[in-house]
Amino acid sequence: MGSTLRRLPGVTPSNALLSLPFLMTFLLVGSRGESSANTETERMAEESHRQDSANLLIFILLLTLTILTIWLFKHRRFRFLHETGLAMIYGLLVGVILRFGIHVPQSMTDMILNCAVNASPASLLVNVSGRFYEYTLKGEVSRSKSHQVQDDEMLRKVTFDPEVFFNILLPPIIFHAGYSLKRRHFFRNIGSILTYAFMGTVISCFVIGLVMYGFVSFMKAVGQLGGEFYFTDCLFFGAIVSATDPVTVLAIFNELKVDVDLYALLFGESVLNDAVAIVLSSSIVAYQPEGDNSHSFEAMAMLKSFGIFLVIFNGSLALGVATGVMTALVTKFTKLRDFSLLETALFFLMSWSTFLLAEACGFTGVVAVLFCGITQAHYTYNNLSSESQDRTKQLFELLNFLAENVIFSYMGLTLFSFQSHVFNPLFIIGAFLAVFLGRAANIYPLSFLLNLGRKNKIRFNFQHVMMFAGLRGAMTFALSIRDTATYAHQMIFSTNLLIVFFTVWVCGGGTTPMLSFMKIPVGVDPDQENSSSGSQRRNNKHESAWPFRIWYNFDHNYLKPLLTHSGPPLTATLPACCGPLARCLTSPQAYENEGQLNDDDSDFILNDASSMYADVTVSTDASGSYAVNCKRSSIASTGVGPSDEGLDHELTLAENEVAIRGTRLVLPIDDPVEPPATVTLPPPPSPPHSEPHRHRILVDLT
Amino acid sequence: MGSTLRRLPGVTPSNALLSLPFLMTFLLVGSRGESSANTETERMAEESHRQDSANLLIFILLLTLTILTIWLFKHRRFRFLHETGLAMIYGLLVGVILRFGIHVPQSMTDMILNCAVNASPASLLVNVSGRFYEYTLKGEVSRSKSHQVQDDEMLRKVTFDPEVFFNILLPPIIFHAGYSLKRRHFFRNIGSILTYAFMGTVISCFVIGLVMYGFVSFMKAVGQLGGEFYFTDCLFFGAIVSATDPVTVLAIFNELKVDVDLYALLFGESVLNDAVAIVLSSSIVAYQPEGDNSHSFEAMAMLKSFGIFLVIFNGSLALGVATGVMTALVTKFTKLRDFSLLETALFFLMSWSTFLLAEACGFTGVVAVLFCGITQAHYTYNNLSSESQDRTKQLFELLNFLAENVIFSYMGLTLFSFQSHVFNPLFIIGAFLAVFLGRAANIYPLSFLLNLGRKNKIRFNFQHVMMFAGLRGAMTFALSIRDTATYAHQMIFSTNLLIVFFTVWVCGGGTTPMLSFMKIPVGVDPDQENSSSGSQRRNNKHESAWPFRIWYNFDHNYLKPLLTHSGPPLTATLPACCGPLARCLTSPQAYENEGQLNDDDSDFILNDASSMYADVTVSTDASGSYAVNCKRSSIASTGVGPSDEGLDHELTLAENEVAIRGTRLVLPIDDPVEPPATVTLPPPPSPPHSEPHRHRILVDLT
Repeated sequence: MGSTLRRLPGVTPSNALLSLPFLMTFLLVGSRGESSANTETERMAEESHRQDSANLLIFILLLTLTILTIWLFKHRRFRFLHETGLAMIYGLLVGVILRFGIHVPQSMTDMILNCAVNASPASLLVNVSGRFYEYTLKGEVSRSKSHQVQDDEMLRKVTFDPEVFFNILLPPIIFHAGYSLKRRHFFRNIGSILTYAFMGTVISCFVIGLVMYGFVSFMKAVGQLGGEFYFTDCLFFGAIVSATDPVTVLAIFNELKVDVDLYALLFGESVLNDAVAIVLSSSIVAYQPEGDNSHSFEAMAMLKSFGIFLVIFNGSLALGVATGVMTALVTKFTKLRDFSLLETALFFLMSWSTFLLAEACGFTGVVAVLFCGITQAHYTYNNLSSESQDRTKQLFELLNFLAENVIFSYMGLTLFSFQSHVFNPLFIIGAFLAVFLGRAANIYPLSFLLNLGRKNKIRFNFQHVMMFAGLRGAMTFALSIRDTATYAHQMIFSTNLLIVFFTVWVCGGGTTPMLSFMKIPVGVDPDQENSSSGSQRRNNKHESAWPFRIWYNFDHNYLKPLLTHSGPPLTATLPACCGPLARCLTSPQAYENEGQLNDDDSDFILNDASSMYADVTVSTDASGSYAVNCKRSSIASTGVGPSDEGLDHELTLAENEVAIRGTRLVLPIDDPVEPPATVTLPPPPSPPHSEPHRHRILVDLT
Repeated sequence: MGSTLRRLPGVTPSNALLSLPFLMTFLLVGSRGESSANTETERMAEESHRQDSANLLIFILLLTLTILTIWLFKHRRFRFLHETGLAMIYGLLVGVILRFGIHVPQSMTDMILNCAVNASPASLLVNVSGRFYEYTLKGEVSRSKSHQVQDDEMLRKVTFDPEVFFNILLPPIIFHAGYSLKRRHFFRNIGSILTYAFMGTVISCFVIGLVMYGFVSFMKAVGQLGGEFYFTDCLFFGAIVSATDPVTVLAIFNELKVDVDLYALLFGESVLNDAVAIVLSSSIVAYQPEGDNSHSFEAMAMLKSFGIFLVIFNGSLALGVATGVMTALVTKFTKLRDFSLLETALFFLMSWSTFLLAEACGFTGVVAVLFCGITQAHYTYNNLSSESQDRTKQLFELLNFLAENVIFSYMGLTLFSFQSHVFNPLFIIGAFLAVFLGRAANIYPLSFLLNLGRKNKIRFNFQHVMMFAGLRGAMTFALSIRDTATYAHQMIFSTNLLIVFFTVWVCGGGTTPMLSFMKIPVGVDPDQENSSSGSQRRNNKHESAWPFRIWYNFDHNYLKPLLTHSGPPLTATLPACCGPLARCLTSPQAYENEGQLNDDDSDFILNDASSMYADVTVSTDASGSYAVNCKRSSIASTGVGPSDEGLDHELTLAENEVAIRGTRLVLPIDDPVEPPATVTLPPPPSPPHSEPHRHRILVDLT
């Protein structure tokens, strides 16, 4: 390896100097010149296949090890290191071993040959002694990297193509995030979530970008900068480092049953800001001022970038929603639910096709997949047979788990295996500071603004936790490894790796102490979360603003009846002139459910396996209005979804939700023998203010 | 496209004539020479990514369409076209459209440049005007194909790398076959299955090879052969076309509930002969006589090939079993079952690692995966939590379904999109004849020989069905598309495509009429299959030969207690000297199950979704011995596995199996409330000879 490195840098610049447009230089890597080209190529292809298998095997074993250790941690209830943090540690260890432990003998001869060519085609046919070999374009190699390409083969081999993250590993993670969104709490806080996700990410991006620009200018003045670093690079850094990761913190939140509103805010924000960050970063890359004066500010180019942002974001959103809606229609109007394998396969393929469709149209597949996941969960999920509901849930849970652990262990590995790291202490310090400031500029001012409008204030301890819980993860990594061609991007990548490590290990591990330090109530059942925050919580007038209520009514009266089997039938909600069409589009079940609200299953799908209780019950008001309202809602029952373990549900009177939705909750029990469990609760005599109101009812299905 | 085709053939041969060892010819494909190389490459990479997405999208939509049509067929109970046949038809249609319907404008300029190079390295660095582009070796292109490479880009784009089949699509199919093997019926017929799979495949391979050699010699004499076709090519053809496909016929068998022994014979044979054929074909490729006199017969080379066959086959088998055993041990000795997601992920990763391990060691991954699947089903499955049992079953069912349909629709597509087809009518006729003769030479003589030893004869109508049901499918296709470099292999590929089409459509579609024509009993419940074949069936002395019984006892006394939680404990079966070790290795559950046989769940895992009744009960003897024996076995109960629908089980007295195993069958019901259903059947007064003995017991778990 040493000789390769030493020999080639001497050669390449001279060629670069000589290189006329029609001159072409070959740096031939990994050929053994002696034997016949044919059998040699075959043997090399076989050898390469074996090597690939072995490398993949390393990953698989790494994951297996991670799984076993996770189990041990869960078994011993050790909460300070999440599985993603663990995966990174194992990745680091393997990276160290590969880097320093294993020395592959290098039997390569390097040949540098000149040939006249003036373009780089997608594929190349090479005629060697009358035999033709086909080569495909892998990509451009930056000049600074060109002598590193033939570096340590072993390390090169374990390096994924960065596009693997975007096309294979990220989509299932993002889809799962959308599919497992607890939509009731999400929609209740939709305004705040959108504010944090959109405005917050943009603020964070610009704050980080500006702070970094200051730092970089200072570094340039001091002479600490080894290459170009433009303002667009700073903004790019700001955009990709603003994507917070839902995985680690929310797993802990889930386990500890932290306040659901806090959970919804953090989860919603981190899911959506991934989408914002990815589109924002690609808009920044697209920011190209006219003429030679690139990397400077120009209003037109800025506007164009903003236009690109809007087009890509909305286009991806529309595509994702469209595929989701199509899947809902197909599953509604066919009897595919009789064959759950076919149904699951269709669901999987349609969800995947969203990604491909978006990519083929030039939009962002990952963003499309997120909104497709949300749509699928909101509509299609209700049409699936209960077996398919289980299957899809479990399938995407598994894919998400595997993809996540691959990414995080690869992060660990890449710290040592990646060969163009640029660690600049000053830049790293600046970046940590900027990330901190950016997060603060996102959370505190926006929370202040939001609290002006919110009935249910986001208190300071919540804000501190949100500040603290802004971990960086898969998306930041995938976005920064995608382009490591320039010095700036290499520095960004290396720094981001450290930021991810720090936030996952320190912030992730410190979440539990932080929660208790901040006196955030844990062990809250989702159905009684209000009682935990006492009387200053929202009253009967729901916190959600009017746009949400308009949307809710539209969704409940038109979209749900159109796309699912739930009532009310379209014949009742649409104007009379649309009668025949409405009859045709309404499913027979909708008539049966008329007047009843059967779509509340949307509220309790996809409970995480770690939460023992299905998130089935709706919030109750702990204030005095409770006893009064209780008399009106004498019937409150709950759906038993596909929750596997918990037949033991906690029911609470759900007056607030019920009053707002104007309908009753009905129990759709799978078992035909059992009559729907209808539970009548006597109003409690006079509930003391601070005590949680829980009525435990055992719905025994055996 | 036309101009490309016309221009290049004129150029290439002249270059081929001129080509000195150090001369290198570039045929540059798909470059637009005008603009700057850098942005052009980026744009091209993006364009190529879009194009890839669009192509994958075509496949996804094709699969979606297939799924919807399959549903329609199932819904209407239309049985003459299986989903695989359907997938092929859709593939054909898309192929026709791509070939003749869509004309992509060709904006490419072809450049032929010469450069001196004497080797074909794995990667190539190309210096174009100071920018470096990395190219990776895609493979050798045969001289006859070299002018077709730059054919229609559209068709080229939808062409998979053949290795995709081996590394991505085949493994889940083969694993699923192993994992879903109905092992009781399989093991009962293990001798016959091994005979058909090993001897039969070898016979078939050589018969087909010889017949084809005759045909090819004749064609050469007549002047109908356009290229070289050696005897090894004939044998290679024989090997790959001897792999029968389990998919289509067995789906029909399953639906119609055909005799289980016939099912076991066909399924076992087609699963195992895939493994035999793949190793056989690679041994034939490895057959290389010394010196220049290649393709002639030579004893040493032959022996060497045989040695390679043995090493690869046994090595793969050992690796597959080893990984399976390791998974069983891990799942046994950890409490991973508390976290079904982790358990499923581990199971998936370990099963996948088998494939990679085998490939990395130079063995055949697909074969390893098959035996890993069988081991996982036999041991690991019993250690999994019931949720993981469902999850793994459903996961591999889905993967199998998707992979199968991709392969079959790709087959249809490739008839038009593949660009080096060689259709030779004479060769095709010869091939069909040879395949027919090869199958006949496999089934009839071997059945005759087996019948000499079998108590339960394989009757002529069974033999005819086995003859008829030898469909060719995914394995034949994957093996023949793997190498299409020479004229002979191109002809083999094209002919195999036709053979697959013919057998899947004609033989697959004709299975139902064939069964009724051959008077094969359908609608047989697996538990009473003996009564269907009357009194000539085996008596109390089990048909299985002594090797099987020795294996069974070893498995039951040592392996199952070691690898699973089932009894008897090792402390009871191992000699006293191994006491401490045995205590350490035996799980607490094994003591509880002491004296009871709890491992019969292995017999009824993985009922296909289409079979309504779980394959839970063991065979009874329809002869007079029945009434006598049944007094001894007054307790017969059955396990209710994770079968989703069928709570209505058919129980029969299982005297034969019980007597041989020397233990009772116990019902491991999941529900803790319900006591194990123990059913005592009074001995029937005097069973009439021809009437099936069925006792229907409703095990109501609700």
